[in-house]
Amino acid sequence: MISVVLVEPEGPANIGMVARTMKNFGFSRLVLVNPNITKESYGYAVHAVDVLEDALILESFEEALELFDLTVGTTGKPGRTFIPHRTPLYPWELTETLRGYPGRVGLFFGRESIGLKNEELERLDFTVTIPTSEAYPVMNLSQAVAVILYELAKRKPEAKVHSLEPATSREKEELVKAWEKLLGVLNYPKDAERREVFVKIFRRFVGRAVLYGREVHTLIGPLRKASMELEECRNAERREV
Amino acid sequence: MISVVLVEPEGPANIGMVARTMKNFGFSRLVLVNPNITKESYGYAVHAVDVLEDALILESFEEALELFDLTVGTTGKPGRTFIPHRTPLYPWELTETLRGYPGRVGLFFGRESIGLKNEELERLDFTVTIPTSEAYPVMNLSQAVAVILYELAKRKPEAKVHSLEPATSREKEELVKAWEKLLGVLNYPKDAERREVFVKIFRRFVGRAVLYGREVHTLIGPLRKASMELEECRNAERREV
Repeated sequence: MISVVLVEPEGPANIGMVARTMKNFGFSRLVLVNPNITKESYGYAVHAVDVLEDALILESFEEALELFDLTVGTTGKPGRTFIPHRTPLYPWELTETLRGYPGRVGLFFGRESIGLKNEELERLDFTVTIPTSEAYPVMNLSQAVAVILYELAKRKPEAKVHSLEPATSREKEELVKAWEKLLGVLNYPKDAERREVFVKIFRRFVGRAVLYGREVHTLIGPLRKASMELEECRNAERREV
Repeated sequence: MISVVLVEPEGPANIGMVARTMKNFGFSRLVLVNPNITKESYGYAVHAVDVLEDALILESFEEALELFDLTVGTTGKPGRTFIPHRTPLYPWELTETLRGYPGRVGLFFGRESIGLKNEELERLDFTVTIPTSEAYPVMNLSQAVAVILYELAKRKPEAKVHSLEPATSREKEELVKAWEKLLGVLNYPKDAERREVFVKIFRRFVGRAVLYGREVHTLIGPLRKASMELEECRNAERREV
C-alpha cells in the first residue's frame, strides 16, 4: 500500500494537481504535512476531490514517519545534494525494489522551494531521483509526482510475492542499533565522526534492502551476540590485569 | 530531433509548465498552435522562459504537420477514442519506436478540454497513450507531457547520477564471507544448516540493497574486526587454561 506524503507543500494548486495525478494512476492515499491547502487546491484536483477530502493532514514530519514500514524520499537535485553514502535510486529501480512488497510505503515529496531537508532525508529509508537535465534539474512538484506514480503504476497489482510480514521501522531501527553497538564495542572506526558515517551507511543499506520481519532477526542476532561476547572477553581480560 | 506541439492549449499556466518540463528533460523545441499564451505562461515556465521565447507560434494544425517527418498524437482516453486500426502505443513503446530515428518528430498534444480531434488524430502517423486508471483517465496536460518526455529522455545520454562505482560481485562476496566467518567464530546459530540459512538471508540482503564499492568496505571492515578480536580473545582464554 503506497501513500504519497507531501511535506509542507507551499502551492495550493500543486496540492490539487498531485491529487489529480494520484487518481489518474490509481493511488488514493494522500498525507499532507502542514500544507497550504485552500479552495484553489480543490479546483485543481478536478475530478479527484475525493482524494483531497480523504487526505490525512498532519502537523509534523515525525507523525508521518510513524505511519509507514518503508519510507522513500524524493530528491530533485542529485548533483548538488549528492552524498556518497546515499546514492538515490532511479524511478524504475524503485518500481523493482517495491515489487511485491506488502508493507506500508510512504513516498515523501518536499517543499517546492527547498525540497526535503537533509535532516528529513536522513530519517527516510532511501531516496529516489528522476534523471533530469543539468541545465534545469528542478521539476514542478506535481509533475515529479506524476512521473514517479506513472512508473510505479506500470506494474499492475499482482499476486503477492512475499507472504512474509515486512520489517517494521522499529525492527529496522533495532538492527541499526545493533550495528552501532558493535562498532562502539570494537571502537572502530576510532574517529567518532567516521563511526557515525559508518552507521549512516548501514542505515541506508537496511533501508534499500527492503527487509522482512524474520530476516531482520537473523541479522540482529549475530550482531548482538558478537557485541556481547566481545564485552565478556574484555571484562575477563580486565579482571586478570 | 523531437518537438513538442501543443494544439490550441487553453490554459496559460499549462503552456509555461510544459516549457519547464521540456527543459527538465533536455528538450527545447516547442511549437504552439493558436495558443492562449499570456504573462502567466512565462511565470510558470520559471527557469525555462527561453523555451517559451524560442517557441514557434503557428495559426493552424496544417502548418504544424508540415514541419515533421513523423507525427505522433497523444490521446488520454483510449477507452473512448479507441479505434481498432490505430491501437495507441504505450510511452515505453514510443521510446523503442523512436530509438535511433534521425528524422524530425512532432509530438502532438491536444486541448485540455477535448484533446486532439478525431480528424486531427487521423492525420498523424500514430498515437501514444499513458496507461491510467479507468476511474480517472484524463491527465493534466503538463503532467502528460512530463511523463512522455521522462520516458523518452531515459534513453538519452544523461548526467551521471551515480558517480560511485557499483560494488563488484567479488566485493559483495567478500562481504558475505565476512558475515559467514563471523557466524562461524560465534558458532551462531549452533546448527550448521540454520547457519547456512542465515548466510543466505544475508546474501539476499546484500543483493537487494544495490551497494556501491566504498559502502561495501564500511560493512566488511567491522565484521572482520569483530571476528578477529573474538578469535584473539578466545586464544587468550585458551592459553590461560
